[in-house]
This record gives sequence, structure tokens and C-alpha cells, in this order.
Amino acid sequence: MTGYNVAVVGATGAVGTRMIEMLAQSTLPLGEVKLLASARSAGQTRQFKGQDLVIEELVPESFEGVDIALFSAGGGISKKFAPEAVKRGAVVVDNTSAFRMDPEVPLVVPEVNSEALKAHKGIIANPNCSTIQMMVALEPIRQVAGLKRIIVSTYQAVSGAGAKAMAELKRESQAYLSGTPVADLQPEILPCGGDKKHYPIAFNALPQIDVFAEEDYTYEEWKMINETRKIMEDDTIKVAATCVRIPVFAGHSESVYIETEKVIPVSAVKELLAKAPGVVLEDDPSQQIYPQALNSVGKKETFVGRLRRDLDVAEGLHMWVVSDNLLKGAAWNSVQIAETLHELDLVRVP
Amino acid sequence: MTGYNVAVVGATGAVGTRMIEMLAQSTLPLGEVKLLASARSAGQTRQFKGQDLVIEELVPESFEGVDIALFSAGGGISKKFAPEAVKRGAVVVDNTSAFRMDPEVPLVVPEVNSEALKAHKGIIANPNCSTIQMMVALEPIRQVAGLKRIIVSTYQAVSGAGAKAMAELKRESQAYLSGTPVADLQPEILPCGGDKKHYPIAFNALPQIDVFAEEDYTYEEWKMINETRKIMEDDTIKVAATCVRIPVFAGHSESVYIETEKVIPVSAVKELLAKAPGVVLEDDPSQQIYPQALNSVGKKETFVGRLRRDLDVAEGLHMWVVSDNLLKGAAWNSVQIAETLHELDLVRVP
Repeated sequence: MTGYNVAVVGATGAVGTRMIEMLAQSTLPLGEVKLLASARSAGQTRQFKGQDLVIEELVPESFEGVDIALFSAGGGISKKFAPEAVKRGAVVVDNTSAFRMDPEVPLVVPEVNSEALKAHKGIIANPNCSTIQMMVALEPIRQVAGLKRIIVSTYQAVSGAGAKAMAELKRESQAYLSGTPVADLQPEILPCGGDKKHYPIAFNALPQIDVFAEEDYTYEEWKMINETRKIMEDDTIKVAATCVRIPVFAGHSESVYIETEKVIPVSAVKELLAKAPGVVLEDDPSQQIYPQALNSVGKKETFVGRLRRDLDVAEGLHMWVVSDNLLKGAAWNSVQIAETLHELDLVRVP
Repeated sequence: MTGYNVAVVGATGAVGTRMIEMLAQSTLPLGEVKLLASARSAGQTRQFKGQDLVIEELVPESFEGVDIALFSAGGGISKKFAPEAVKRGAVVVDNTSAFRMDPEVPLVVPEVNSEALKAHKGIIANPNCSTIQMMVALEPIRQVAGLKRIIVSTYQAVSGAGAKAMAELKRESQAYLSGTPVADLQPEILPCGGDKKHYPIAFNALPQIDVFAEEDYTYEEWKMINETRKIMEDDTIKVAATCVRIPVFAGHSESVYIETEKVIPVSAVKELLAKAPGVVLEDDPSQQIYPQALNSVGKKETFVGRLRRDLDVAEGLHMWVVSDNLLKGAAWNSVQIAETLHELDLVRVP
């Protein structure tokens, strides 16, 4: 073969931009790369391996001849156009929440459950950013010691809410530092573009990501609960999440508490994680070494540190998990799924 | 009586400045107010109820004729000068960690354990900021349903590290927004002025507050564990803490998970907290109402929201707890202790 024709849907967004970068670095044999977006962005160009690619307007016919379509243009676009892509023979890797909990759709973190790809029917879902990095960190521990329970509190970057949210953090921060009163910061997007009220994120912490849903958990919190169980194929894992947006541009951090089935010493966990795929262990309190959001930017790995035993519960472990939410949390995981589909010879609609 | 002579030790610091404000708003009958600081600051003036007070250099003799001394100038100063104040008949309310775990010294949050003041021998300790607000939120629940376990992840403001740390966040933020690369931000204070390495806090999250101690927990984390047990007078409460600094100037936020002895419905917890002393319940997901650090600034109360049951553990509850760390977490709690000492007629060294 000469290579796969790949389409990027949502090529101008925060994630789409990174998808193009990740594709350029990928080992995936590439044929034609096609950048798709709304009519508004059509005609703009983006660099790809030294070439200028012209962005085309997304229409159903865009997928003629496409082998792999990477979607990151919002759930509505995925729901409408992913079936059109599949109908035309393209395998879809979808970075929205549109199909994640569909029992027919594999939800994949390649380090954890690439086997699930074998059952794909044309669409593969990329999990939520905050879920992915937690799965990469916990799977090596689960394999050895089992996993009964997760309690996670997140420290999520604004880039997870898109390029406009990043611009909002920048604008508000500049205004605040120039003396603008908090009441005059005029937030328009965060905590959630689709919700009624908006609050400043600059120098603040907002315990709302996505809209509120059942039991007064946010949809983001439900994603972490439900997606964890689906990816780990274990509905008995107890998962509780509190998802919080903080004034960081990129890089999600997570304070994660787990209880394993079997007691495992911290030293053994460190050994496991030091050699685990996709994980970088950054953990040396004597040298103040621990993962930091700013250091994770632009990197594909998930960084784990602050590993320590719970002082009261023998099976309890605490840790700090950080990753670039636009890369492993979105663009890189999507391209990595495409690479894995290629390795397993699954780039075809069954 | 005409009123108490009150000394503020560390009058020019982030907390000392707020102590002066809180004293001015206090119901405490006041005689003379004396502002004390290092020789470097002596001679400066500070406004107090429309008067200019001249800052004096702190020496042992400063406490002659003083009834109440509020200390917030670092643990070393407290260790050296608090006994000097007591020797001269002043009751000391100390905001440092110098005496907190001394079994002879009451550690007091007035809403929780003002009874402990009765045993004071001249020094009363003000708990750590992150502990205080958690105690205010949890005590009403504990009284009704008991408390077995706490797992807390904090989102702490830089003002907890003092005025210089606030200036550092401002300087780094401005530099970053002007295009300075992360590698050139030149952090000098955070995460911890007394530790070896310094990292940028602007647009970052640092999982280190204070230095590392036993079991790879930081000293800040140990404070939350040990102080909780001392204030609640129950060494059987399981406490685990992960303390994280985020780029917020003022207002600590906390993601708190608890397990009670008895199952208590969330609706009953909300009723309890709505009428609890020092608590403001801000909890209406349908209207996106929850506590926010920016909204807590300048307020004396502890704000609680995002209350919801754990989905797997019947005795489990999650919540979000926010308070101005310089007020309830420091200056206001200290002045409130002084007010309570007055109400209980305990302003004397036994």
C-alpha cells in the first residue's frame, strides 16, 4: 500500500490543530491528508510537513476515498457526519462524547484496551481527556493488584474548553492584572459555553466542567465514572470524581486516590510505573520532583508522581497525574488509535 | 474595664495587615493597639480606625501592658517572643505552626471547639488555613452523623505563602502573558520559600505546599491530618490530604470527601449547613451556584457547595469548601479567638 488517506474534521480547533501536528509526527503510512472544517474556515491553509494544505468545507462527500477520519468538531458534527464517513468506507476516530457510551463503539486508550478495537464497526471513540490520563496511570497497577475504588479531584486546563476559552483566560488575566475589578471581567464562555451563566476563570477555581446532570454530578464527572468502567471493562469499580477548572492554559492535573484489591507496596508501584507504556514516573520528594502542568505541555506521555500510601487504609494509594490534555487527552490518543488500527490491520469498515 | 491592649506581631505581612482590619471591625473592647514588626519596618505607619499607628520594633519589652498579642510573623518569631509576651501577662493567639501540636496549647476554631480555650496557659494556637475552613464545614455534619474518614484535595491560593508569593504570581503572570518563555520566569519563592528549588506558579499547579516530611507527605498535608484530629478531639478519624498550590491570589478551595458514621441524606446535610455558624451554603446546580475563590475574598465565612452523595458508599459525601485563607484561615480566626476569650472571660494568663 502507499498509505492511508486521512481526514481531520475540525482542523482549525484547539484539538484539530494538534491532530495535524501529531499526524505529521506519526509512524502511520500516509497518503493524502485532507483538512475539513466549517464553511467559515474553508479556504484557509495549514502547514503539514512543509506543504500548505487548503481547508475544505465539511460535506458528506468529503469522505470519498478517505481511509481514516479523525473527528474533533463537537458532538453534533460527529453525530451527523461520522455515519456519512463510515458509509463511504472511512474508519472514524471520534474525539467527542457522541458515541463514547454506545455499546457498539469501542472506547479506547491504546495502552489499556487496544484489543477492544477488534470489534469496531467503523467508529472508535476517543475517551474524555481527564479519563485517558487516569487510565494510563492506573492500568499498570490494576493489572498487578486489582482496582476496587477511585476518588479523583481534577485540576483541568482551559484548553479543554477550546481555543476561545484559552483566549478568555488570557483576556481576563490581563484585565485583572491591569486593575479591572472582578465584576467587570465579562466572562462569556467558562465554565461551560453551552450553559446559562459564565464566571471568571482568571485567578479563580470553578467546580463545574460541562453541564450539571443526574445526582448533581456534572457531565464531565459522569464521563470519568462511566468511561473508566467501560475502558477497564469492570462495572464494579467504584469511581467518584470532582472536576474543577483552574487558570492553566494546557495540562490537566489530577489528585487520584485508589484502593487496590491486594495490598501493594509503593516501591512496587513505582517499579511498575517506571516501565509502563506511556507513563513517565516523576517522583522524588527529596529533590522536589513531581509532575507539573507547565512541564507536560507538548509531551505525549502521562506523568505520575507524589505516590504515597494512605496512612490508614492498607490498600489505599495517593498520586498526582498530569498530562497535556490536548495531546494524550485528545489529539495524540486519536492518532495513536489510528496507528494501532494500522498495526492490527483494522483500517477498514467491516 | 476600658478595653484590652492588643499587640499585632508581624503587622506588615499579608496576614498581619488583615489582622489590623479584622481588629478594626471587631466587637472586642479595645484599649491601645500596638503594631510590632522587625526593625526594618519600624517607623512605618498603618491606618487603624482613622488614626495613623506607628509600627514599633518587636522586642521582649514590647509586651509590657499588653493583654492580647496576635502573632503572625513566622514560627521562629513566635517561639522566641510568645513566651516573652506570656511572661508579661499577655495572652498570645499564635497564627504560626510553632505551638499547634503542643499538648499544652489549645488549637481552636471557635465554631468547633471554643471549650478548649478554658485550658489555655497563655498561648492559643490558630490552626492552619486549609484545616480551619474544612473544620467549619465538617463539624455540623460530625455532630449529627459522626465522622470516620476525610479525603481532601486542596486548591490553595498563593497568599497563604505571604505577600512576596502574591507578588511572584503577579510578576510571572505578566511575564508569561507578554511572551516570556516558561524557562525564563525565574521563580524565587514558590512552592516553598524555605525549600531548595522554585517553580513557576503562573498558569501551573504545584503539588507541594511547605517542605516534604514523613511518608512523602508534605508538612502542609501533615498539618491537615494532625490538626483535624486535635481540633475534633478524635484520633480515630482517618484523614488523607493532597495539598496543591494553584494560581489564585486569595481564597482556598477544597474538594472534600467524607464518610460519616451514620448515613445522612444530602438534604439533611444542606439543612444543617444552612444554619451552621460561620457557614454559607452556596449550592444550587440548577442555577450554577457553587462557592468560588474569587467570591470569597474579603469575607469571613466558609462557603460550602457541590454537596452530593457518593454513588457507591452509603455513608459517603462529596463537597466543595471555599474560604478567604487570609481571613477565616488566619486573621479573622485569630481575632475571633480573642473575641471568644473575652466572652468566656479568659483574657488572662493563669
